[in-house]
Amino acid sequence: MSAVQHEKCSRERIIATARHLFATQGFHQTAMSELAQAAEVSVGQIYRLFTGKNAVIQAIVMEDATGKMAEMQTMNDSVKSCGMSIEEGFVELSRRALSKGDEALTFEIMAEAHRNTDVADTIADLCSGFRSMIRDLACVANPDLSDNDLEGAEELILAFMFGLGHRTLSRPRLSEDETARLTGRMILAAVRAL
Amino acid sequence: MSAVQHEKCSRERIIATARHLFATQGFHQTAMSELAQAAEVSVGQIYRLFTGKNAVIQAIVMEDATGKMAEMQTMNDSVKSCGMSIEEGFVELSRRALSKGDEALTFEIMAEAHRNTDVADTIADLCSGFRSMIRDLACVANPDLSDNDLEGAEELILAFMFGLGHRTLSRPRLSEDETARLTGRMILAAVRAL
Repeated sequence: MSAVQHEKCSRERIIATARHLFATQGFHQTAMSELAQAAEVSVGQIYRLFTGKNAVIQAIVMEDATGKMAEMQTMNDSVKSCGMSIEEGFVELSRRALSKGDEALTFEIMAEAHRNTDVADTIADLCSGFRSMIRDLACVANPDLSDNDLEGAEELILAFMFGLGHRTLSRPRLSEDETARLTGRMILAAVRAL
Repeated sequence: MSAVQHEKCSRERIIATARHLFATQGFHQTAMSELAQAAEVSVGQIYRLFTGKNAVIQAIVMEDATGKMAEMQTMNDSVKSCGMSIEEGFVELSRRALSKGDEALTFEIMAEAHRNTDVADTIADLCSGFRSMIRDLACVANPDLSDNDLEGAEELILAFMFGLGHRTLSRPRLSEDETARLTGRMILAAVRAL
């Protein structure tokens, strides 16, 4: 294995281990030495790859968002080229929001973002990318929307997606499939009502 | 001041202080001794009023939810007695979701709920109350909904409210008033589309 590949492996192992530790015991309760031991690297090696614990959080956020964005972009392209109907597009959007990954970790990161400008800025940048993709879909659903109405549609869809991805604590009874099918249809009607 | 009044004041002061400390530095980084000192009570007094830190979190959650629920119940009654139109009802619902209080504290509490069954149970109980009120509004908006569709409407509205109340990190441009006006109208259309 080359030195570059080795660094890449260490980086991935540190991020995967940090996900688990931050989610189960919290960001502040996880010492760098504990992360190093669990990821089987030295503390020095973590600091060579990351400027600090915040940088590890930011890497987790980026990793999750990059995957989601790529999926959403593929879906948007498919709707724009008419390979997928706009209703199916919104159903898929709901489905992606539902399979959002580790909720405990997201809440931990969001709490930290309110205390830490760097983390908040990373999240804001990513949201701006999501907003632009949501806006594209809303324009396909209703090409006559004014700028102001588009902002409203964007707020509704972004809020809905965030809530859907963090609904576990509310103990939902409806299956993910059925939730995606029904809410996708509702979102389309909502955007067309403006 | 009677002993009972005195206890009530101490309890309120502990909760208010805990809100501030948990939000700014996190739940686990706040020691009981620090909470006691900041709230100007003894550690023993905190333990006479609360079984532990979890019980303080649960008290914060209950306090916030009780206020929100009472407001929502008043609004629901007004819609049911036709004093308020169903569209105004949904606009008001959006407005209440937007003025949700301290987001950092909510994220801190939600992260803890994923590690702590007692906190998770308290949140689930409260969500069940919110679900029932949302369901009432959805029935007024569309009395022909099947049970399954009602579940879908409930999921959409609950997710939307949670997301709207935690949108700060996404840096929204639309004002709260305009957001409530537009999204309230959209939610009504969404529920009527099923």
